[in-house]
Amino acid sequence: MRESLSFIYKEQKELSTLCGISALLGWDQMTYMPAMGAQARSEQSAIISKLVHEKIISDEFWKHLENLSKPINFNTLANKDKIVVNRLKKDVEKARKVPTDFVERASKVTTLAYPAWQEAREKSNFLIFSTHLKKIIDLEKEYCEYINLPGPKYNSLLDDYEEGMTVEKLNREFCYLESQLVDILEKIKSSEIYKKQKSIDKKFNAEDQKKLCDVVFNKLLLTKDKVRLDVSTHPFTTSIGYDDVRITTNFERENPLFSFFSTVHEAGHALYELGMPRDEFKDTVISDSPSLGLQESQSRFWENMIARNKYFWKFFYPIFIKTSSNKFIDSDIHSWYRYVNQVKPSPIRVEADELTYCLHIILRFELENKLIDDKININELPEVWNEKIKEMLDITPKNDAEGVLQDMHWSGGSFGYFPTYSIGTIYASQLFKKLIEENENIFYEIEKADFSYILSWLRQHVHNFGRIMTADEIIKKVCGEGLNSKVFVNYIKNKYFELYEV
Amino acid sequence: MRESLSFIYKEQKELSTLCGISALLGWDQMTYMPAMGAQARSEQSAIISKLVHEKIISDEFWKHLENLSKPINFNTLANKDKIVVNRLKKDVEKARKVPTDFVERASKVTTLAYPAWQEAREKSNFLIFSTHLKKIIDLEKEYCEYINLPGPKYNSLLDDYEEGMTVEKLNREFCYLESQLVDILEKIKSSEIYKKQKSIDKKFNAEDQKKLCDVVFNKLLLTKDKVRLDVSTHPFTTSIGYDDVRITTNFERENPLFSFFSTVHEAGHALYELGMPRDEFKDTVISDSPSLGLQESQSRFWENMIARNKYFWKFFYPIFIKTSSNKFIDSDIHSWYRYVNQVKPSPIRVEADELTYCLHIILRFELENKLIDDKININELPEVWNEKIKEMLDITPKNDAEGVLQDMHWSGGSFGYFPTYSIGTIYASQLFKKLIEENENIFYEIEKADFSYILSWLRQHVHNFGRIMTADEIIKKVCGEGLNSKVFVNYIKNKYFELYEV
Repeated sequence: MRESLSFIYKEQKELSTLCGISALLGWDQMTYMPAMGAQARSEQSAIISKLVHEKIISDEFWKHLENLSKPINFNTLANKDKIVVNRLKKDVEKARKVPTDFVERASKVTTLAYPAWQEAREKSNFLIFSTHLKKIIDLEKEYCEYINLPGPKYNSLLDDYEEGMTVEKLNREFCYLESQLVDILEKIKSSEIYKKQKSIDKKFNAEDQKKLCDVVFNKLLLTKDKVRLDVSTHPFTTSIGYDDVRITTNFERENPLFSFFSTVHEAGHALYELGMPRDEFKDTVISDSPSLGLQESQSRFWENMIARNKYFWKFFYPIFIKTSSNKFIDSDIHSWYRYVNQVKPSPIRVEADELTYCLHIILRFELENKLIDDKININELPEVWNEKIKEMLDITPKNDAEGVLQDMHWSGGSFGYFPTYSIGTIYASQLFKKLIEENENIFYEIEKADFSYILSWLRQHVHNFGRIMTADEIIKKVCGEGLNSKVFVNYIKNKYFELYEV
Repeated sequence: MRESLSFIYKEQKELSTLCGISALLGWDQMTYMPAMGAQARSEQSAIISKLVHEKIISDEFWKHLENLSKPINFNTLANKDKIVVNRLKKDVEKARKVPTDFVERASKVTTLAYPAWQEAREKSNFLIFSTHLKKIIDLEKEYCEYINLPGPKYNSLLDDYEEGMTVEKLNREFCYLESQLVDILEKIKSSEIYKKQKSIDKKFNAEDQKKLCDVVFNKLLLTKDKVRLDVSTHPFTTSIGYDDVRITTNFERENPLFSFFSTVHEAGHALYELGMPRDEFKDTVISDSPSLGLQESQSRFWENMIARNKYFWKFFYPIFIKTSSNKFIDSDIHSWYRYVNQVKPSPIRVEADELTYCLHIILRFELENKLIDDKININELPEVWNEKIKEMLDITPKNDAEGVLQDMHWSGGSFGYFPTYSIGTIYASQLFKKLIEENENIFYEIEKADFSYILSWLRQHVHNFGRIMTADEIIKKVCGEGLNSKVFVNYIKNKYFELYEV
C-alpha cells in the first residue's frame, strides 16, 4: 500500500510538471513564437499530450488506484490521502473510458477543423466549415457513448467542464434567465437614457493602455515576480508553475477599454491560480479548479462586480483622466460609469455587455443540445442561429462571420464548454451577494482600491479548496445554495434599472 | 531490419522534438520567466532531460542499432541510412558508457555549485566555490575513466565538444599561438597609435541600440518569421525547431557596441542553425553541428571577419551616425574603424578584443589540464591564474571576481569546453581566407552589406553537411587543411599591424 501511495504521488507530480511544460508551449505559441515555428510546436505539444495521456490511462496507475480503493486499505489512509485517491480514481476511471484511438482520431479532425474554421470566418462562408463541424459532432456523440452519463447525451459533455451539471438543471436556470434578461432589455431599451446614449468616443494609445493595465495589475495584488502580462490576439491566462502565471491582453482592439477590462478578467483567473492549495495538496490532482464555471466566476467577479462597479471608478476615474492627458475633461465620473456599463446589443458574444452576454450563451447551449440530439440539420444552423439572435436581441447578423462562425470553440470540439461562461457569471453574482452580506465595508474598500480583504475572502471561501469539493459543493458551502440565476437577475436589475432610471 | 530502421528514425524524431521543448524551457527561463518560476522550471527541465537520456541509453534502441550495424544488414542499407546508423551508434555507444547514477550525481553537484559560484563571485571569495569545484573536478576525472580515450585524460573531455581533438594537437597550436600573440601585442603596445589611443566616449540609449540591432538583423538575412531577438543577461542562441530560432542580446552593458556585436555573433549561430540539413536528414542526429568549435566558427566569422571589417563600416558607419542623431560628428570612419578594433588588454575574457581573446582561452586550457592531471592544488588556483594573466597580458586582476571566478562554465562541469572558443576563432580565419581566395569581389559585397553570396558559400561548404563529417573533416574539405593557427596569426598580423601602423 505504501508502494501504491508513493506511486500515485510520484505520478501526479510528474503529470503536474508535464502540464506546466504543455502550458509553456501554448503560451509561447500565442505570444512570442515566430510564425514558422508552428509545425514543430504542434509536434512538441502532441508529444507532451501523449505522455500525459499514457500516464493517466496506464494499467499500472489504475492497479495502484484500485489497490488503494479497497476498503481494507482505504480505511487506513490519512484523510488527505483519501481525498486524493477518491478524486484521482474518478478522473482516471473517466479517462480510461475513452479509447486511445478515439483521442487520436479526434485530434486529427480538430487539427484540420481549426484552419477550416479560420478560412470560413475570413470568407464568411459556413460551407467551408460545415463538413468539419459534422465530423466533430459525430465525434462528440461517440464520446457521449463512452462516458454514458444518465439523462440526455449532452450531460456527458457538460460534465467534463462542470462536474455534476445537467441539461435539466441548466434548462431550468437558462429558461428563467432568458425570459428575465429579454424583459429587462426591453425595459432599458424603452428608457430615455438608452435612447439618448452615445459612445464616449475616447481613444487610448497602446502606451497609455499599458500604463492603465499596469496600475490595475498592481492594485489587484499581482506581482511581477510571479505573474507576467504579455500581448496575444485573444487574452488568456495560463499557469506554468505554482509561482509562474502568465496573463495576456491586447492593445489593438477597437474598444479603448478592452485591454483594461480583459486585464482585470485575466487577473481574476491569475489570482485563483495563485490561490490553489499547495501545502499538503501541492502537485496533486486536488490543486486545481473543480470546474471551468468556478474558474470563470473568479474572472467575472473581478471584471464585472469589481471593475464595473460605481465605487471602483471613484479611484480609477482620476487615474484615467490623468493617463489620457485630460482628454476626458468633457466627461464626468457619472457619465463615465454609465459608459463602462453601456447596454448595447451586439451580434458578437465577445463584444456583449454584462446584461446581454448570457443570452449569447443560452443560444449556443440550445443549439449544441439540438445538434447532439439530431434535432437540427447542420445546414440549417446559420439560419437557426440568426433567428434566435433576432428573437432575443432584435439584431440580424450581417453574415455568417458575425453569426454562427464567430467563435473558434466548436472547431476544437469543445461542446459543453460555452455554458460555463454563464455558470461562472451567475456564481460570481452569488459570491458577490454573500461577500456584501458579510462585510458592509466592502464598497469603502473598493473605493480605495484596497482589495486585500476581498482577495482573502475569496481565498478562504473558494481558492483554498481546490478540488476537495465540486464547484456546486463549494458554492453551496459559501452561499447556502447551488447555482441560482435569480441572484444574478436581481443584481442586474438593481444595477441597470438604476443606471437607466427604469 | 525494416523494423529497426523505422524504430531508430522514430526515436530520433522524438528526441529532436524533446530537445526543442528543452530549448524552449531554457530560453523562457533566460528571457521572460517570472523570478519565482525557477523551482518549477528546474523540475520541468529535469523531466525532459531524463526522458531524453532514457531514450538514448535504452536497451531497445541499442538492440536495433546493433542489428542495423551487422555487416549483413548494414551493407544493404541506403547510403543515407548508413550515415545515420554510423553516427548514431557512436553517440549512443558513448552515452551508454556513462552510468545513470553518475549523471544523477553530477547533476546534483552542479545544481549546488552554480549558486555557490554566483555567491563566490559576488563576494569575490574563491573559498566559497572551491569545495564545489573540487567535487566537480573529481566527477570530471571519473567521467574520463568511463570514456577512456587514448592519451591524456583530458582528451575524453575535449571529445565531447570537439570530436577527435586531442591535447597533443591543441598544445602544439596553442603554444605557437601564445608566443605569436604575446609578441604581436608587445609590438602594438609600443606603437605610437596605441600610446595615444582613447575610447570614443559615445553612448547609445537602449532604443538606438535596438534600432541598430534590427538593421543588422535584417541585413544578415534573418527574418522575424523564423528568428526572434530578445533580451537576456548573457546573449545566447537556441533552436526551438527548424524554423524557430531565438537569439538574445543585452542593451544595458557598459560598452555601447556590446549589443551590436553580440547580435551579429548570435546571428552567426542562428544562420548556421537555419542552414542545418533538413531534407533527407531532417530530425536525425545528422541535422546538427558536428562540434562546438565549428558552431563558434560561424558566430566569430560574422562578428570578427565581417562586422569588424573595414568595408563593413563603409555601409554601417553612416547608419550609426544617423541613429545616434549625429553625435558622431567629431569622429570619422577611420577613427571609428580603429575604435571598434581597439586592442585593450583586459582581465575579463568576455571583454577581450580580437587579438587577446585567445590568450584567455589558452590560460583556461592549461589550468583545466593541470587540474585534471592533479598538477596543481585547487587552493593555488587563484594565484596560478593571476600569474599567468600577468605573464601574458601584463595585468593583475584586482580580485578573484576579475580572475578565477569570472566564468560560470566550471560550475556547470563544462571542462573541455573553453578551447572550442579558440578553435572556432581559428576555423573562422581559415574559412575567411578560403572565401577571399575564391571570390575577389567579397569586400565589394561587404561594403554594400550584401551578404547573400557569403551566406550561400557557408551553406554550401559548412552548414549543409550537418554532422555527416566531423568539424575537422569539414574544415579539411573546404580549406585543404585542419586546424591551423598560423592562418589566424597571419590574419591578426595583417589587420592589426596596419591598424597600429607597426
